[in-house]
Amino acid sequence: MTTTDGPTPFRKRLDRLTAHRGALCVGIDPHPPLLARWGLRDDVDGLEHFARGLVEAIGDRVAVFKPQVAFFESYGAAGMAVLERVLDDIRAVGALSIADAKRGDIGSTMAGYARAWLSDGSPLRADAMTLSPFLGFESLRPALDAAAATGRGVYVLARTSNPEGHGVQLSADADGRPVSQRIIDEAQAENLRTGLDHVGLVLGATHRDLGCDPGAVTGSLLVPGIGAQGGTMDGVRASFGPAVARVLPSVSRDVLNAGPDAAALAERVTRLLTS
Amino acid sequence: MTTTDGPTPFRKRLDRLTAHRGALCVGIDPHPPLLARWGLRDDVDGLEHFARGLVEAIGDRVAVFKPQVAFFESYGAAGMAVLERVLDDIRAVGALSIADAKRGDIGSTMAGYARAWLSDGSPLRADAMTLSPFLGFESLRPALDAAAATGRGVYVLARTSNPEGHGVQLSADADGRPVSQRIIDEAQAENLRTGLDHVGLVLGATHRDLGCDPGAVTGSLLVPGIGAQGGTMDGVRASFGPAVARVLPSVSRDVLNAGPDAAALAERVTRLLTS
Repeated sequence: MTTTDGPTPFRKRLDRLTAHRGALCVGIDPHPPLLARWGLRDDVDGLEHFARGLVEAIGDRVAVFKPQVAFFESYGAAGMAVLERVLDDIRAVGALSIADAKRGDIGSTMAGYARAWLSDGSPLRADAMTLSPFLGFESLRPALDAAAATGRGVYVLARTSNPEGHGVQLSADADGRPVSQRIIDEAQAENLRTGLDHVGLVLGATHRDLGCDPGAVTGSLLVPGIGAQGGTMDGVRASFGPAVARVLPSVSRDVLNAGPDAAALAERVTRLLTS
Repeated sequence: MTTTDGPTPFRKRLDRLTAHRGALCVGIDPHPPLLARWGLRDDVDGLEHFARGLVEAIGDRVAVFKPQVAFFESYGAAGMAVLERVLDDIRAVGALSIADAKRGDIGSTMAGYARAWLSDGSPLRADAMTLSPFLGFESLRPALDAAAATGRGVYVLARTSNPEGHGVQLSADADGRPVSQRIIDEAQAENLRTGLDHVGLVLGATHRDLGCDPGAVTGSLLVPGIGAQGGTMDGVRASFGPAVARVLPSVSRDVLNAGPDAAALAERVTRLLTS
């Protein structure tokens, strides 16, 4: 499907940018021990110095930043105001943002979250957001439609990197399909229906056996767990099959621990992009 | 298990208050059509008038308010600042608050959400919050522990009121148990372990067959879907078994549509409490 008007789809913007800057997503995870490591206080000022300093240091060489919303929400409305400024900074340096919010709800409530993160007028607007499908893939409809309409993207949790996820994610639906595979299939049906490939998936890099097959997915695959959590790109190649071409590796601690020195942060990013 | 010091557990505070005021939770769901119905603008001022006006009108006769976080997040940091003031108002009128946030993540990120909603010093602190277990019940550990330590509660999604939820929630785990039952069992194990009954569950009132059995749960059961979504208290009695004694019915539209007139709102609450 081709359209001649409307906003440039997220997937196209992502492909263009990763072709230039390389396929790497850097998580912005200002948790208290990391603030301390950077010599910053555990308060709103420390939060702002950390997050905006990181984007300033490496924003011209990283394709995608993934602010972890929880660490801003921790400081209440003042923390969310910092996140608004961080999202502005990410736009200003020409990178893309994925708000790692893992929101999931139904009906008008889901529409409220879509409005927060995926609408043009919102101060919290990002280029994409993560979604949690516990209430069913179709419950995410308002966010899927908002992303499609505004040239944004979503990443739906399918198989997360943590060991406790399997109880839900590998359970079998009425057709005997693992929940994670069901989510993958529903996401891909949506990509085929719209032709936009705006629906990506979150798949952890830490599993020897993924328990599901993302091979046919044409959306972007956000893959945390490489590095500090023990996942490797070789492991991802083995378990993702042909879908490895659509993998966007997400790294947090392996970059953030190099800060606050800007040159050290930049060097770490360069090393990851050439490894 | 009894403890002589520490904060009064959420479950005990809830029981005391519902014994006086009746078992009713009123959702604070300021979505745009409702703001319009109340003659308010779809902006931060309209949001604040709606949410704080509602608490002012009925705050002395309702045991629990459940602000729907999405509708505050929609307006960015300014909306979250309104939510901070609404949570203050709820405390001031002696009611309890459940932040309907449906958060769910892992490790330090989950700890960040727990800090936001379940820690004494946070401007967004509530008496309880809703959690989404797609990453596994045990991934919610930082929030479970924070609630236990501070006299707060959590409500974990198990079987939601929407029709699209069954694909995930009724899938069968490795023991052949529906995911919703697995969550119920894990929640109850935590209640038995701590003796605090701080882990409640969200179970929709809209299912003829719940597909899981909350009978043994000693935590509070937050039950949306009664009224506008088609659920009835008779249906809840039939499908919840002995657990019906621990049901906290959650009503939104059936109350909110009576506003903005304070007397009409109060009359609607009284009618629900005596029906």
